[in-house]
Amino acid sequence: MASLTSPAVAEEGMWLPNAIPAAELKAKHGFEATPALLEHLQKSAVRFSTGGSGSIVSANGLVMTNHHVGSDMLAKLSTPERDLLKTGFLARDRGQELPCPDLELNVLWSIEDVTDRVNAAARGAADVAAAGAARRKAITAIEDESEKATGLTSEVVTLWQGSRYHLYRYRTYRDVRLVFAPETAIAFFGGDADNFEFPRYDLDCCFFRIYEDGKPLRPGHFLEWDADGAKEGELVFTWGHPGSTNRLYTADHVAFMRDVEEPMGLRRLWRSEVKQTTFMGRGAEEARIVREDFFGTQNGRKATQGLLDALQDPALVESKRAEEAALLKRLAGKPEAKDFEDGRRMVAESLEAWKRLAPDYFALERRMRGGELAGIARALLRMKAEDAKPSADRLPEYGDANRESLESGLYSPAPIYPQLEIERMTWMLSGLAEERGLDDPLVKRLLAGKGPRARATELVRGTKLADVAARRAPDMNDPMIAFMASIDADARAARKAWEDQVQSPQRDGYAKIAAARFAAFGDSVYPDATFTLRMSYGTVKGWTTEDGTKVPAFTTLGGTFTRAESRAGDPAFELPKSWIDARAKLSQATPFNLVSTNDIIGGNSGSPMVDAQGRVVGLIFDGNLDSLAGDVVFDMTRNRAVSVDVRGMLEAMRTVYDAGALVTELTTRGDAR
Amino acid sequence: MASLTSPAVAEEGMWLPNAIPAAELKAKHGFEATPALLEHLQKSAVRFSTGGSGSIVSANGLVMTNHHVGSDMLAKLSTPERDLLKTGFLARDRGQELPCPDLELNVLWSIEDVTDRVNAAARGAADVAAAGAARRKAITAIEDESEKATGLTSEVVTLWQGSRYHLYRYRTYRDVRLVFAPETAIAFFGGDADNFEFPRYDLDCCFFRIYEDGKPLRPGHFLEWDADGAKEGELVFTWGHPGSTNRLYTADHVAFMRDVEEPMGLRRLWRSEVKQTTFMGRGAEEARIVREDFFGTQNGRKATQGLLDALQDPALVESKRAEEAALLKRLAGKPEAKDFEDGRRMVAESLEAWKRLAPDYFALERRMRGGELAGIARALLRMKAEDAKPSADRLPEYGDANRESLESGLYSPAPIYPQLEIERMTWMLSGLAEERGLDDPLVKRLLAGKGPRARATELVRGTKLADVAARRAPDMNDPMIAFMASIDADARAARKAWEDQVQSPQRDGYAKIAAARFAAFGDSVYPDATFTLRMSYGTVKGWTTEDGTKVPAFTTLGGTFTRAESRAGDPAFELPKSWIDARAKLSQATPFNLVSTNDIIGGNSGSPMVDAQGRVVGLIFDGNLDSLAGDVVFDMTRNRAVSVDVRGMLEAMRTVYDAGALVTELTTRGDAR
Repeated sequence: MASLTSPAVAEEGMWLPNAIPAAELKAKHGFEATPALLEHLQKSAVRFSTGGSGSIVSANGLVMTNHHVGSDMLAKLSTPERDLLKTGFLARDRGQELPCPDLELNVLWSIEDVTDRVNAAARGAADVAAAGAARRKAITAIEDESEKATGLTSEVVTLWQGSRYHLYRYRTYRDVRLVFAPETAIAFFGGDADNFEFPRYDLDCCFFRIYEDGKPLRPGHFLEWDADGAKEGELVFTWGHPGSTNRLYTADHVAFMRDVEEPMGLRRLWRSEVKQTTFMGRGAEEARIVREDFFGTQNGRKATQGLLDALQDPALVESKRAEEAALLKRLAGKPEAKDFEDGRRMVAESLEAWKRLAPDYFALERRMRGGELAGIARALLRMKAEDAKPSADRLPEYGDANRESLESGLYSPAPIYPQLEIERMTWMLSGLAEERGLDDPLVKRLLAGKGPRARATELVRGTKLADVAARRAPDMNDPMIAFMASIDADARAARKAWEDQVQSPQRDGYAKIAAARFAAFGDSVYPDATFTLRMSYGTVKGWTTEDGTKVPAFTTLGGTFTRAESRAGDPAFELPKSWIDARAKLSQATPFNLVSTNDIIGGNSGSPMVDAQGRVVGLIFDGNLDSLAGDVVFDMTRNRAVSVDVRGMLEAMRTVYDAGALVTELTTRGDAR
Repeated sequence: MASLTSPAVAEEGMWLPNAIPAAELKAKHGFEATPALLEHLQKSAVRFSTGGSGSIVSANGLVMTNHHVGSDMLAKLSTPERDLLKTGFLARDRGQELPCPDLELNVLWSIEDVTDRVNAAARGAADVAAAGAARRKAITAIEDESEKATGLTSEVVTLWQGSRYHLYRYRTYRDVRLVFAPETAIAFFGGDADNFEFPRYDLDCCFFRIYEDGKPLRPGHFLEWDADGAKEGELVFTWGHPGSTNRLYTADHVAFMRDVEEPMGLRRLWRSEVKQTTFMGRGAEEARIVREDFFGTQNGRKATQGLLDALQDPALVESKRAEEAALLKRLAGKPEAKDFEDGRRMVAESLEAWKRLAPDYFALERRMRGGELAGIARALLRMKAEDAKPSADRLPEYGDANRESLESGLYSPAPIYPQLEIERMTWMLSGLAEERGLDDPLVKRLLAGKGPRARATELVRGTKLADVAARRAPDMNDPMIAFMASIDADARAARKAWEDQVQSPQRDGYAKIAAARFAAFGDSVYPDATFTLRMSYGTVKGWTTEDGTKVPAFTTLGGTFTRAESRAGDPAFELPKSWIDARAKLSQATPFNLVSTNDIIGGNSGSPMVDAQGRVVGLIFDGNLDSLAGDVVFDMTRNRAVSVDVRGMLEAMRTVYDAGALVTELTTRGDAR
């Protein structure tokens, strides 16, 4: 069982765009990572504010991503009469492209190491908590300053869990329009049953277009398509935004995930899944408006369960402990051995604080979820309070650097459904009552003498915040704002306690541990994922399962129909009419989905998969079940990334969707539309 | 908000068959409860070992119950090729009737008060725990003695939470054969969405026949049918076996249910529901073999959620506290006031012990569920150990009085599915790991160095207990038996601690409280439900919902089709082909389902609803959402029982199922088949 506490093994790694393992790529694969190619790929990659990846794929600002990354927008653009998730969508000309209500796309423009400046701010701090606060303040100041100076969206990224700080600057686009999406029935063919599985048959793609000043963007960089796709064994790269990994966690921390954190997350997901399922059962419209959340919950549940399954093999934590012992042996006699042990102790202490503080922190702050209106109410309440302070003193999400993003969400015209809002608020209130009991002072305060559903109904019916105009000039006595105000002091206190007693000591601890790792292994240690741009490399390759089954690297379009027939009667395997009608015309042998050894994780969804020339050969949309352990370990023998093959995409666009203009735009360098 | 801490209000009450409120029935309804009629109804009522009620409804031992009570047998009688739940079943002659593998039906024959004998055994005991143990031992002795003397199944029932002990003797039948069941699609039309709702359109019925010595039973008593059904406002009775209520609980205990017990139960149900759903998603056969468990889980989840919704209204516990204050005021100056306060304190202390002991007790003993094979292994292990002792010293379920029931389950030829057994064992092991962490000594012992799934696979593949012959002469080194043996000492210790520190003090406390209530209210206090025969009376009557909607008392067969059309596309509302084909022939206006004010709860499913002459007018199958609070309070304004109308049943049997012979048997006194 490989792991990143030791140096990266072949094809493992989510590499920083400014720290590519160029020597290794050259030596092992003869691949030349030229600065021009790297810049080209970096500036063609796109980060979605809805939590996914994408890439610019035409001279006219066309952006490719997954259907399940775009689906949040598809839902927001839908009505009871026009259900884009069900029917799919194709703009026949630019005039038909649908503007998204609150989508933000970011393209990474530059990286600057600001570690010294961040750490300098903490020098001389009285304790770990004060040092952490000083660093957070310095970070906000750096971001504000950069944003003012460059006009670019500026974010300081914490790398190696607190060992380095890099300032990332992005070009940001907010006029984004929907161009093409297939039906969910084929984008997510097989549903939860086939999610994280392979063989797969999913057209999990979606296309948007960036506009600037009302015209399609003419990007400096975009990825060309290789209509011939990739071959088995070929070297391929992904450029995307893996959300989060924990491979550098101590063994104690991994055991804590296994015994505390992940089980807690699963319990929350099980509850949500059942609540959402029962809400969907009430009728077709209820099903439509909660479906996106529901898919998200199911996806999270399957991913978390897969990770927990891996963690609950006692061998996993044992291997982590063995690696720590080996590292200490390697550092024997060096001062970094003590750093490592100090760091490990600090992390262990922070986990005790975690257990103590988590109930309040999660309930009141981090996972305080009572629906859209509750979120808007909190944002309005805090914006007013925070705006009275200098930007660097505010909660970071209310700082100047983040203002445009904040307002884009806050004033979004996306629909809000009162019946769903009542449910969400009920789920939150009853959840607090389940966890704390009805005699808990906070629960009493929130329920105000009523049952959860009665209270939720009163709040949702009473608030004016469904109206965007009411958000722009909010009445601070609005019942939903008053509701959030009644716990704001507790919520802020819970956040501060968390930052001071969990987050800051953990960062300091991991900074010491990272120093020890660098001392032992040098630059071969890549940082854990941070939802920032990373490169992974790998090869197109099937695998052999634990019980000996050989899984081939490719599936075909024809296989889709066979799979549908073998699962007849299960709604998750019902093909859309467009595919049934086009069956005879489709080239059956065309590759549809494929697997490769690339090291990816959630957030990489929508990443382009490119060949050695930087041309698109696939579109990452999933990992296999074995990849779910990738949060803590990478096992190249079985961990696989799953992509849509360009050949399957093109054939489906041509034959099923009659989207010839889109195919032309993707396969020619110029502007064909 | 009415409640049974005060005396029963009109139409509330689950009355003991030997303590009917005859005077009140006479005064209010002019109803004469003659001993002959009461005996007739008592001896026509049937208790199902699978946890439901029924009644003998023909001179040839035909038994009526709900489809969802019979469905456990329908599943056990099904194969991948013959799915009785999907297709339904009708025996065209007696030779086609299908013998059930392990169903046991009980008819209550006599009741004897043994309170003095049970309490005498505890006199002079050193403490509450010793007194409890002495009582349990006395109970087993009484049951054994009765069984030996009479040949009747004998059970001592604890009433009023420990205030009285009654010996119930039953005639027991184990040769039971399936006669008729409709398709699940119409028996459970509307699925989880419509469960506990009204209006309803469900043919939730199922018919079995009791055989004795290879011939249909010629019962001394059976219920005739009134083919004209009941009218709105008519007085109706149910005779059935409500499983459990907690209306006599103290306010503290109800608050404990609300804050601790029910939320814990829901968390377990959410987990099971998601696990079963994902297992069903794997394929048609997986769906078939777990479907019954899944429906049970959904049903339990919706019932528990409904109860918790009621409990989380702060007014509920407040009303309980107010009633206790009123009771104490009424008893002011009497010694029973102190009894009440002592009892309340003892109950409160037992709840502290509950919290402390529940994790071990539930995990190792009461909810130790790792599948059929694990259950069989534990039974074989314990049977061997217990049989070495005199019956009165054994765990009660291994006593002589229970031997036939035990063996009927243990040696049942019902199918066992290895793939489902692996899942269930995995769910159990991973559940323990989630709750206790992998470093817990018990978890370590059970996993034996493997992950939960690997360990479960090894155990299920290794055991021989799927073979009934291997159970009759068990190898005590069988891996599954060895597995259960490895925790048996812990499990027994957890059970003893629970009995001594939770159960016994609670019984003593409630005995004091019951004494106080009897002093204040006399015999008008009926005991909480105990899955023994109870009579309820009520009237056929709709209700008005909280938001003012009037719900009529009856639905019609024709309404079924309208409902199906309004929910087209939802699989839970897809009618079976038999109904679609018969639509034109069916008399549309025939009453199908109805509601009445009868006080029922889970376990009453399958109870006959009879008119003042004791003739069947309906078949209880559900309660409305408001009835779910019935566990702790009865609110006659909205709590409704839901039944299938005899008229709907007969019309469907005649027209949809061509079951004329069955109709004749049900509607004539003699033997028409």
